[in-house]
Amino acid sequence: MLYGLDVLSQNIDSLIIKNIYNEALISNDAKNNLEYLTKKIGPRLCASPQAAAAVEWSYQLLKNYKFDTVYLQETKVVDWKRGKKEQLIISSQKFGSFEASICALGGSVGFDNGEGITAKIIEVGSFEELQSLGETKIKGNIVFFNVPMDNSVLNTFIAYSKSAKYRVNSASEAAKYGAVGVIVRSLSMIDSDNPHTGIMRYKDDVKKIPCAAISTNDANKLSKWLKYDKNINAFYQQDCRYNGEAVSYNVIAELKGISNPENIILVGGHLDSWDNTDGAHDDGAGCIHSIEVLRIFKQNKIKNNNTIRLVLFMDEEFAQRGGKTYAEYVKEKNEKHIVAIESDAGGFMPIGFSLDASDTVYNKVKSFENILNPFINLRYIKGWGGVDIRPLKDFNIPLVGVMIESQRYFDFQHSAADVFEAVNIRELQMGSATIASLVYLIDKYGIE
Amino acid sequence: MLYGLDVLSQNIDSLIIKNIYNEALISNDAKNNLEYLTKKIGPRLCASPQAAAAVEWSYQLLKNYKFDTVYLQETKVVDWKRGKKEQLIISSQKFGSFEASICALGGSVGFDNGEGITAKIIEVGSFEELQSLGETKIKGNIVFFNVPMDNSVLNTFIAYSKSAKYRVNSASEAAKYGAVGVIVRSLSMIDSDNPHTGIMRYKDDVKKIPCAAISTNDANKLSKWLKYDKNINAFYQQDCRYNGEAVSYNVIAELKGISNPENIILVGGHLDSWDNTDGAHDDGAGCIHSIEVLRIFKQNKIKNNNTIRLVLFMDEEFAQRGGKTYAEYVKEKNEKHIVAIESDAGGFMPIGFSLDASDTVYNKVKSFENILNPFINLRYIKGWGGVDIRPLKDFNIPLVGVMIESQRYFDFQHSAADVFEAVNIRELQMGSATIASLVYLIDKYGIE
Repeated sequence: MLYGLDVLSQNIDSLIIKNIYNEALISNDAKNNLEYLTKKIGPRLCASPQAAAAVEWSYQLLKNYKFDTVYLQETKVVDWKRGKKEQLIISSQKFGSFEASICALGGSVGFDNGEGITAKIIEVGSFEELQSLGETKIKGNIVFFNVPMDNSVLNTFIAYSKSAKYRVNSASEAAKYGAVGVIVRSLSMIDSDNPHTGIMRYKDDVKKIPCAAISTNDANKLSKWLKYDKNINAFYQQDCRYNGEAVSYNVIAELKGISNPENIILVGGHLDSWDNTDGAHDDGAGCIHSIEVLRIFKQNKIKNNNTIRLVLFMDEEFAQRGGKTYAEYVKEKNEKHIVAIESDAGGFMPIGFSLDASDTVYNKVKSFENILNPFINLRYIKGWGGVDIRPLKDFNIPLVGVMIESQRYFDFQHSAADVFEAVNIRELQMGSATIASLVYLIDKYGIE
Repeated sequence: MLYGLDVLSQNIDSLIIKNIYNEALISNDAKNNLEYLTKKIGPRLCASPQAAAAVEWSYQLLKNYKFDTVYLQETKVVDWKRGKKEQLIISSQKFGSFEASICALGGSVGFDNGEGITAKIIEVGSFEELQSLGETKIKGNIVFFNVPMDNSVLNTFIAYSKSAKYRVNSASEAAKYGAVGVIVRSLSMIDSDNPHTGIMRYKDDVKKIPCAAISTNDANKLSKWLKYDKNINAFYQQDCRYNGEAVSYNVIAELKGISNPENIILVGGHLDSWDNTDGAHDDGAGCIHSIEVLRIFKQNKIKNNNTIRLVLFMDEEFAQRGGKTYAEYVKEKNEKHIVAIESDAGGFMPIGFSLDASDTVYNKVKSFENILNPFINLRYIKGWGGVDIRPLKDFNIPLVGVMIESQRYFDFQHSAADVFEAVNIRELQMGSATIASLVYLIDKYGIE
């Protein structure tokens, strides 16, 4: 009899989940909203007017969807500006000259003199090589870190995390030996003219020198020139600077739970992007995924026991101030979260859930496989949740990272190529439906 | 002790498979070969000069790779030609006129008079609606079948097979009621200006009337016009015709097995494409996948026990004459095939294996999951193998269809959009490596 009930319950689940996928796939909302966010608003660096426009637009959008609660949560964010467009003009007595395609890394300083510098370029392939060259060879020069992403690594996120240290730390490492500027090969596996930006950080005890990413095509060209001409100079100018902090907002909406409204299921992405990109995959897709979860629940009249809360975080790219602020509120109000789910891996096909949680939670989520498998074949692993929800781990809230097929992701991330057209709408919709299905199952069956 | 050996053996397998993925991902060959096939040769309708060029190019390529055996297998193929470009000019007294983007369906006749016709357009949404309109409404008119693919279906191949009957049968169904031509909405879920061709068939007992696919954008526009103007005429002209049969070839290469060279593991795709497309996904990708399997084995010096045979089939799109001819040779020479694997679902991410085989074979292949899972999360199902290898089923040869992520496939298939740039090279390479890994495991452990 119990068995009979289980089967019945599972049939109901299958029907509800089928309707979730239907609604996701048939609706034009995901497409229209992503198009607006990326094409009408475009780049939305935190503390920029476009970031403010994204806050305003998404607040109105969520209001228009008539979710139960829609509000802004104030947060401080980093205020960093690129300033005038960067320039790197390479000059070789042997080959001539060309202007390379570069963009300042996020957080980099500009040149104090406001006019840039001309210096010799020294290519290195690793921190070890930098060290072996030492002050004799490095001092007064521009260091060019030309370390390609390892394309033999199957999971491109792992390849990325292996290489990201060059983007993050090269400026300080090179400054130790007296370098005056740093150019880093973009973190992308493809041949492209687009430079890819991303966060860098300065160590406290070394001079802050400007650093920028160079497109893979120009990195290849420059490296080729350097093979035959060791005396290549570059004029390097960039203008970026910190302006301290600014005020911005996380955008929040809820579908109130019927039986346990005080229990929260969080689903979110981040609203900000870099300033050189429309941020369609990073993380327009995660915002749309999350908005769609609530929209589908409401549209399909699914009654949720617990409160489903959407959070569009601000300032993920710099300092995750939105995520930190959110966690402070959770602590202050002593809110109970059942789970926090983040989508920040692009808008390609969903391929699994990565659980930063206990074995019990892992096993519970993994047990949903039987119900989800007829719809989508997913991987369930223990791993990273998400950078905006990471502070919630301190309150023992289970974190879920939505895993997305990653082969193409770094063709686009943090570059001008990350546009609306780079997102396949059906794949995006499959992501929304998959997250909504997980939310439905957690809401019904709990997570522990 | 046996357990210890198993673990050792599995470690060796993991190492070999890791090296298979490495080689696939690091090499430029897949990219270069696909680029040549699609950009230098381009459309390769069977019996066309480009199909002959593809045969010649791939034969030389396989020779250059120094595989053990490379030969051509003669086969008859269908010789159908599109002739002059088709035209469909829509005229409404209310709205004006426009030329719609159409292409003749594969196998369609042209107009006997050589000049086309002008007739009224009648839209229908199903065969039932056609029947209910009957001869009174249909006779002397052009029938416009406007049946969109069902985008709520998760697996687009299933959505495709549900809708394909309109492409295949509409001409004969409409001719029964005296229609003089048929226009069918393209089988694609996206809004696009590209018409998608594909095979159609005439029933024996009805008049053969011309039929063509119309782009989804123009289908939408025409349908909108018809909503407000029931008297829309069209000038419809197409010139295509059958020229009987021609001679062409399957292209075959082998890596001879060391211990059991008489046992064959077949891996293949089809070399022909439609004439309105570069055929990058359909089925350039399958050809590259298959070529890569042999190249990787040779490059990595993997010793195969059984003979690995690559077959690039000819005339898949029309009548699968290459596949049928191949099966005849197998029968004639009484060749023993362990398995036949076909890749004909595009060059996106590989997602599984579809087995048209016994439970024993299914269980054996499924048992490889433990070894493959650290590399790629695949689905193992019982299902369709492939149209070119289908005749081999009569000899009880297990068939394996390579399953490929399908969300984007019908944005491209059989249309001008199916170009080199639509294929992501890493995803293509992941396909090659995944098939090569399966071949390695079957070669080592058998399939039964």
